[in-house]
Amino acid sequence: MSRFVFHYEIESEPGEIAARADALLLEQTVELSRTAASDAWVKDNIIGEILSVEPLEQRRFAVTVAQPARTTALDPAQFLNVAFGNSSLQPDVRLAAIEPPEDAFAAFRGPRFGVTGLRERLGAFDRALTATALKPMGLPPERMASLAHTFAVAGIDVIKDDHGLADHDFCPFERRVELCQRAVERANAETGGRTIYAPNLIGPPSRVRRQFDFARKAGVGAVLIAPMLVGPALLFELADEAALPIIAHPAFGGSEWIAPDALFGDIFKWFGADASIFPHQGGRFSYSRETCLSLASRLRSRAHGLRAAFPVPAGGIKTSRVREVLSFYGVETMLLVGGSLLESGDVAGSARAFVAEVAKVSKAFSA
Amino acid sequence: MSRFVFHYEIESEPGEIAARADALLLEQTVELSRTAASDAWVKDNIIGEILSVEPLEQRRFAVTVAQPARTTALDPAQFLNVAFGNSSLQPDVRLAAIEPPEDAFAAFRGPRFGVTGLRERLGAFDRALTATALKPMGLPPERMASLAHTFAVAGIDVIKDDHGLADHDFCPFERRVELCQRAVERANAETGGRTIYAPNLIGPPSRVRRQFDFARKAGVGAVLIAPMLVGPALLFELADEAALPIIAHPAFGGSEWIAPDALFGDIFKWFGADASIFPHQGGRFSYSRETCLSLASRLRSRAHGLRAAFPVPAGGIKTSRVREVLSFYGVETMLLVGGSLLESGDVAGSARAFVAEVAKVSKAFSA
Repeated sequence: MSRFVFHYEIESEPGEIAARADALLLEQTVELSRTAASDAWVKDNIIGEILSVEPLEQRRFAVTVAQPARTTALDPAQFLNVAFGNSSLQPDVRLAAIEPPEDAFAAFRGPRFGVTGLRERLGAFDRALTATALKPMGLPPERMASLAHTFAVAGIDVIKDDHGLADHDFCPFERRVELCQRAVERANAETGGRTIYAPNLIGPPSRVRRQFDFARKAGVGAVLIAPMLVGPALLFELADEAALPIIAHPAFGGSEWIAPDALFGDIFKWFGADASIFPHQGGRFSYSRETCLSLASRLRSRAHGLRAAFPVPAGGIKTSRVREVLSFYGVETMLLVGGSLLESGDVAGSARAFVAEVAKVSKAFSA
Repeated sequence: MSRFVFHYEIESEPGEIAARADALLLEQTVELSRTAASDAWVKDNIIGEILSVEPLEQRRFAVTVAQPARTTALDPAQFLNVAFGNSSLQPDVRLAAIEPPEDAFAAFRGPRFGVTGLRERLGAFDRALTATALKPMGLPPERMASLAHTFAVAGIDVIKDDHGLADHDFCPFERRVELCQRAVERANAETGGRTIYAPNLIGPPSRVRRQFDFARKAGVGAVLIAPMLVGPALLFELADEAALPIIAHPAFGGSEWIAPDALFGDIFKWFGADASIFPHQGGRFSYSRETCLSLASRLRSRAHGLRAAFPVPAGGIKTSRVREVLSFYGVETMLLVGGSLLESGDVAGSARAFVAEVAKVSKAFSA
């Protein structure tokens, strides 16, 4: 029987960990004691198995659990439910890693464009990609478009909305998308470049759907969504249309309840993200080197027949750190430098310097 | 200018808390330093204000921030983004409470049925409501329907699917809903009762939408959704149709990143939940008495012109604890007793005893 393997970390007294692990196993599916869940078919087909319980440091244990794949119905929301539905409410447990069975990837199809698709769209090979964000929230569409033009002329590959840009009265979604997309097209015509614009989709599902359709008709090259804000299963649904590359943003993802490499690396990728933004270590967030490397490697993996996705390290990175960050991640990376390009009075110059630095460092690393 | 007030708890060295609070304020909207966010209109209309920074115990501070309501576009997903988008990724900060401005409630309309609507639908006044769950995952639709019939004949008010029941091959959604709804209708015809059945909707938004429409046509009395699994803004969207009462389930809600009374009390209610399930203290979860009381009081509040919603304490409650739990919450409560009714061989007898105990205790408390 095909099974998902879930790795948890649990705080517990050593004498209680066996019972705690068993309670976790049952909590995620039958929500009944073994006595009450006595039906033979349920026991054979629904109730999973504790594979191992290993002590970590003081009062912490690594607990590995297998759950039958059919409990998830291979539905993205129900998969999250079996992985960490009720148990997420308990402060003593953390979801550390997930190993789906091979046949799950018939449903969890991963990126529809991925690294190769994005590189082809951008005509950018053998180097890291550059990305930046339109900000701050509060500028009208005309000024966002003007910024987009500046960034595109400078040769930045991907210009995304800040993930806080919604359908605001002061910067309505449709007007912004139209003007920014036209500005980028104009810049591309001027420079011969292939910059793409990725608007942020946010709202209840039907609003996101309308925004997606509008953006597609407007000719944008990708879209940005924050799956934890709009619903992770909506990422799955939009990706399934394979209409546009999707860049995932980690906002509202929480801290340390689910390991960041599992959530922003594996899950977002399995659900269809072509690129996944995450805070690089050393910025204003706190991920470890190991977490960042694992995140990047999970996104880039071509295992299970999935396409590779771009890791997008971000979070207060400046052009002066490009060499350091790319030596850490390598060139199969989309490097997001946002606010710092706006810190100087010369946005165009800062953007050109960022693009030049990424090209130079990429060349050095590829040589 | 209308503003949302957000209360955070931040861990910080005392010497760094002022800068940390300011960084949090900017992170949630402009994502730029004050230097870079220098546009006059942005400063006046977008950037919020630190209202207070108060020390709690050692290295923890209560930080209160006001953000202009227009930054949220009064959109449910963008509201969560401004409340706790990027900052949720940081391990040193917790969202403790939210105070919307009065005019936000034109968009955040709360329960469409609420306590009064559910009581009228059930014909149940002056007592606590009873609820139970169809389980375990793995039973076929026929056996779920048989259980539903037993519970309805016993007089339980609300029979909901376990939140782990999805569109499984072994228990397909449509077949389950049809059979369970018919079983409950048959029982009502037999007893003169008014029990309602609430199926669990789960999946990507378009699947949830199809399930919602199917359930409505089948005549169910309410639906169950876990907003954090299907997307909190989908709750908002479904509630907006005012077609069926919605019971919210806390699965995938995480622990302590957002205060449970803010998430399952305020936010779920503002987004439209008519009843909200949460783990009662003393069960297999760990909420404090204060959290549970605050949760119940927020759900029941009629402030801001919203209808009251039912608190639904749950999580390993047994009939033997009905008196204790109702003395804690009072009768404006829907009491969810799940697994323990199935622990004994006599499910019908256990269900009748639960109903009788709630009636008896309610009468004692109302007298």
